Amino acid sequence: MELGAITSRQNQIVRQAAALARSGEKRREKRQFLCEGARLCRDAVLSGLPVELCFVTEQARAKYGDYLRPVLSVCREAYLVSEHVAELLSSTKASQGIFCVCGWPERLLPEAVWQSEQAPLIILENLQDPGNLGTVFRTAEALGIEQAVLLGECCDPLSPKVLRASMGAVFRLNLRAEKDPEKLCKLIKEQGFRLHAAVPDASALWVTEIDFSMGQHAVLIGNEGNGLTAETIALCHDSVTIPMAGRAESLNASAAATILLWEMRRRAAEKRGEACG
Amino acid sequence: MELGAITSRQNQIVRQAAALARSGEKRREKRQFLCEGARLCRDAVLSGLPVELCFVTEQARAKYGDYLRPVLSVCREAYLVSEHVAELLSSTKASQGIFCVCGWPERLLPEAVWQSEQAPLIILENLQDPGNLGTVFRTAEALGIEQAVLLGECCDPLSPKVLRASMGAVFRLNLRAEKDPEKLCKLIKEQGFRLHAAVPDASALWVTEIDFSMGQHAVLIGNEGNGLTAETIALCHDSVTIPMAGRAESLNASAAATILLWEMRRRAAEKRGEACG
Repeated sequence: MELGAITSRQNQIVRQAAALARSGEKRREKRQFLCEGARLCRDAVLSGLPVELCFVTEQARAKYGDYLRPVLSVCREAYLVSEHVAELLSSTKASQGIFCVCGWPERLLPEAVWQSEQAPLIILENLQDPGNLGTVFRTAEALGIEQAVLLGECCDPLSPKVLRASMGAVFRLNLRAEKDPEKLCKLIKEQGFRLHAAVPDASALWVTEIDFSMGQHAVLIGNEGNGLTAETIALCHDSVTIPMAGRAESLNASAAATILLWEMRRRAAEKRGEACG
Repeated sequence: MELGAITSRQNQIVRQAAALARSGEKRREKRQFLCEGARLCRDAVLSGLPVELCFVTEQARAKYGDYLRPVLSVCREAYLVSEHVAELLSSTKASQGIFCVCGWPERLLPEAVWQSEQAPLIILENLQDPGNLGTVFRTAEALGIEQAVLLGECCDPLSPKVLRASMGAVFRLNLRAEKDPEKLCKLIKEQGFRLHAAVPDASALWVTEIDFSMGQHAVLIGNEGNGLTAETIALCHDSVTIPMAGRAESLNASAAATILLWEMRRRAAEKRGEACG
């Protein structure tokens, strides 16, 4: 493929792509986001996302051919960019020099109709830390949880930090967004899910007391500092906690999510008679 | 307590304290570190660390009296600092305006003799991300793991980011550092521990196959990108893995540590006949 060359940071195509990395508002307005890194760009293509543009440095083109090929085969336009243009696009300290502009996943568009399949589900309310959010996505995927809902005001799942921490899981999860807890919980209850609110409260059910081996379960995790809202907790069937030792007052949101997801998976696998999780 | 006032960023006491926050070399040279935040400063005192100096803004003095009191009662000198001096000392976006200079925990001094008690143990090899390291400490404490070893070239456990992510757990864990895997593994084996190397390898033992309810166990977690070194894996009794689903190739280091620590705790509690983990 013959690539156009861009060597100026003033180039409008580059400036618009860089704005997608920096601004959530710009992403929502354009319904596009910028993806950085050889593996993430390839993962976006393999996950069936619409890839509009690709930017690659000469060095990256030589080094990451195997990753670049699927990207170049689907993208609308591709450009060879100089190192200092790549720096403008990059959100990392050591950029690999590969970027692509992708269209939003359809299921994350505001008008998407949320439909849940019968599978374990994680619901994240008001998660604000991009590293936490991305890590939870990565862990959920690794543990076989296929769907996640962003409830309320979570940070943007298409920001560079979330994409990076998720290692591409954000492209593969059945991911939805919903502002209204009442609407969401009603919908999920109607589909037969039991809703468990994760709380740092020793009087709640211990996670090992819930029988994840029977029926459909959704676990709800709240904001890093404030936990779940009282409104959302009241909408759940019960509250669940992880018993703690020592002087620690709580686990961080992503560690708590990891243990809850692991227990959902481990117990569900026991039911199926698998050797393990 | 009557507090001296510092309003200049050129003040030598302040400049030396700021250097402790920025430079690991300076921390090792002085055998001191800078602790920031109301809760962390109080935790340092409650954990019995030697507290040399305290810096507090007028606003913080009014707001965090309950946290400040124990700090002022033990520190050698205390200073009221202006907001722009506090900014120089701070490693956070929104500083609380309380800082103290502490001496290193004795057990982390290079000449400390490492002695293990009979308790579950986590060993971290070459962990480089301060957020990961601090989170693992916090999770370990919450799950009742009382001791941790930093093996090889881990990032500095007394850096501002680790302290913050650990929520003070770094002060309370029985924490040691050891450069040499052979020396460490020999010592721990002599004390009757079984050593389990965590690897992202589906052919290793699944974590649920290890009987943590019997005997003493140590789990070893490796570097974020490269895992454990081959040398260290060879020194362990066996290798353990967390079964994964989906296209995810691995969990991040702190998520893997969370699941391994949780399983150690959960199985050990089963043995004691507790209701849960």
